[in-house]
Amino acid sequence: MINAIGYAAKHSYSRLKPLEFERDEAGPSQVEIEVLYCGVCHSDIHQVKNEWSNTVYPCMPGHEVVGRVSRTGADVTAHAVGDVVGVGCMIDSCRHCEPCEAGDENYCEGPNSWLATYNGPMVSAKKAPDGHNMYGRDNTYGGYSSVIVVDQDFVLKIPATLRPEVAAPILCAGVTTYSPMKHWGVKAGDRVGVIGFGGLGDMAAKLAKAMGAEVTVFTTSKDKRDEAARLGVQVVMENDEDALKSLKSSFDFMLSTIPEKHDVNPFVALLKRDRTLVVVGALEPLAPINNQAVAFSRKSVGGSLIGSIADTQEVLDFCAEHGIGPDIEVIPIQQINDAYQQVEDGDVRFRYVIDMASLQAEHAS
Amino acid sequence: MINAIGYAAKHSYSRLKPLEFERDEAGPSQVEIEVLYCGVCHSDIHQVKNEWSNTVYPCMPGHEVVGRVSRTGADVTAHAVGDVVGVGCMIDSCRHCEPCEAGDENYCEGPNSWLATYNGPMVSAKKAPDGHNMYGRDNTYGGYSSVIVVDQDFVLKIPATLRPEVAAPILCAGVTTYSPMKHWGVKAGDRVGVIGFGGLGDMAAKLAKAMGAEVTVFTTSKDKRDEAARLGVQVVMENDEDALKSLKSSFDFMLSTIPEKHDVNPFVALLKRDRTLVVVGALEPLAPINNQAVAFSRKSVGGSLIGSIADTQEVLDFCAEHGIGPDIEVIPIQQINDAYQQVEDGDVRFRYVIDMASLQAEHAS
Repeated sequence: MINAIGYAAKHSYSRLKPLEFERDEAGPSQVEIEVLYCGVCHSDIHQVKNEWSNTVYPCMPGHEVVGRVSRTGADVTAHAVGDVVGVGCMIDSCRHCEPCEAGDENYCEGPNSWLATYNGPMVSAKKAPDGHNMYGRDNTYGGYSSVIVVDQDFVLKIPATLRPEVAAPILCAGVTTYSPMKHWGVKAGDRVGVIGFGGLGDMAAKLAKAMGAEVTVFTTSKDKRDEAARLGVQVVMENDEDALKSLKSSFDFMLSTIPEKHDVNPFVALLKRDRTLVVVGALEPLAPINNQAVAFSRKSVGGSLIGSIADTQEVLDFCAEHGIGPDIEVIPIQQINDAYQQVEDGDVRFRYVIDMASLQAEHAS
Repeated sequence: MINAIGYAAKHSYSRLKPLEFERDEAGPSQVEIEVLYCGVCHSDIHQVKNEWSNTVYPCMPGHEVVGRVSRTGADVTAHAVGDVVGVGCMIDSCRHCEPCEAGDENYCEGPNSWLATYNGPMVSAKKAPDGHNMYGRDNTYGGYSSVIVVDQDFVLKIPATLRPEVAAPILCAGVTTYSPMKHWGVKAGDRVGVIGFGGLGDMAAKLAKAMGAEVTVFTTSKDKRDEAARLGVQVVMENDEDALKSLKSSFDFMLSTIPEKHDVNPFVALLKRDRTLVVVGALEPLAPINNQAVAFSRKSVGGSLIGSIADTQEVLDFCAEHGIGPDIEVIPIQQINDAYQQVEDGDVRFRYVIDMASLQAEHAS
């Protein structure tokens, strides 16, 4: 066993605190990774607070993990000791279902679905159709920790030109916005609307712009408006009815990154005929969608969940190639609870990324 | 002017009563049609009762019109006196916008959108962006009438092997269900779910079956269950939770024909990954859609509105070729108010089709 330390919540109402625990040694196909940085995702907070009613405690979040390979199993060929690598939202999947065969592991239809980096498996043994747990564990501990052990197939290569702390949020926020834009065929010249400008919205706007799209960001915050404007994209306040009216039926694709229940109807109106608005931020019931507006231009409202391993590698490489990445603020792990509060208050201009050296320092002291 | 008679409502709370009126003589490109039969669509009732808050009175419904050409304008080449022809939901469109150029007149983006067969134009001059009415009329009178005059491009050919009274509902119920199945690529071997089994559901099930799909009808009515079973398709009661559970993630396409606000979530669960549920029955806000279920398999919920003129001709020809059509009950127009009540009560096994000879008889007497 490997002695590890991380930050975890013991209950839905608990603050995150240090937790010593053990990880299994790397098996033949696994990679042991010393964690260098871990991004803070809004879903970490949802999960810690049990807002999706499926949290297993203790809950140690973190699925935007970048680190250095410290050990490899005997059969590992894809990664070598010393490599800078990443781990996103998944650390395994059933590998045999149709989506897995098609390279869409994030839609794994195995009895426990994919194995989430923390709080996994996605479908617990208790809820699986046959009560079977293929992964042999009912909880996983994420990247708010000193070390992580992951199968080589679920470990991403971090391009040399990406700073590791900048790469971290690409592993979730990046691929979550990149994957639907790829799936729904966003291309150069398209008009793309990005609704909400947090960690996902920031990445969506930068990725769409790098794809050659004409990007409009919709936000309710004047601070975020100014921030988005610096990307050289159009920015519209969501309450600016005249602006919304002038943009009617003009978008080829819209992506909603708002991380809670919201009303997509004003944005459905901005889509061209036959186009789709995709919701990636909210994993909950939306406000009622008016089918009159949807049907009158044969539109659709879809959803998308993170992205495949191949998409994740693709978006990392795409970011490196185009010199883009999230705006981040590096924090020591001791500030994590305050950071959560600020994310919940919508009071963040940057994606928080935890410098894991702070954990080692605390542990050593 | 042509002296005409029809059945119309004077107010939202009125019963339909005979109304004498005048129609313009056929212009050079227009066709005068003696109406033989007119189908009764659930939307006739919505419109008469002003349930979409846009009804212009008097309201003379009817957009499933079959008749015989009685006169043609000088430039008419497509139809000849004596031909049995049909008129569906539209009698004109702007013809210059991108959807019109693409042959999608039913999504016309001209300032008044398409000209509805009754209660047209779709967007009134008052609500049009520039206050302009391209059609020169603020109301149109539909097929519950002795005669109708329509531009040749919006007149359909009724195949000789289709009885005219059977052809009538294909002009709305048929194309409304055919068009989205074509657009979303339903093909032989697909599993298609049809939600609701009224006039639209009946046509959807027959069309999908004729396309070679494996069809399942979902209904809440035991009478309709038995009726649908006679088509040789699978029928599932919507409240049969075990059956719904066993059908999870198994459909390639689902079509909701329920004509009012409803909850699509139980049916979204039945779609395969990456597939779409399309709502054609309800032109109003749906119950809140749970984006968690949508996103977890990259599904979509879309809408579709009737179909193009080309689609309408195609579905008429398809029905003739495959020997399918709606189950109908022919009624005299004097029974129209009772028929409305029965449609509203969901108490109809057949599509009502008005025999217009009854109107002439009344008029003559």
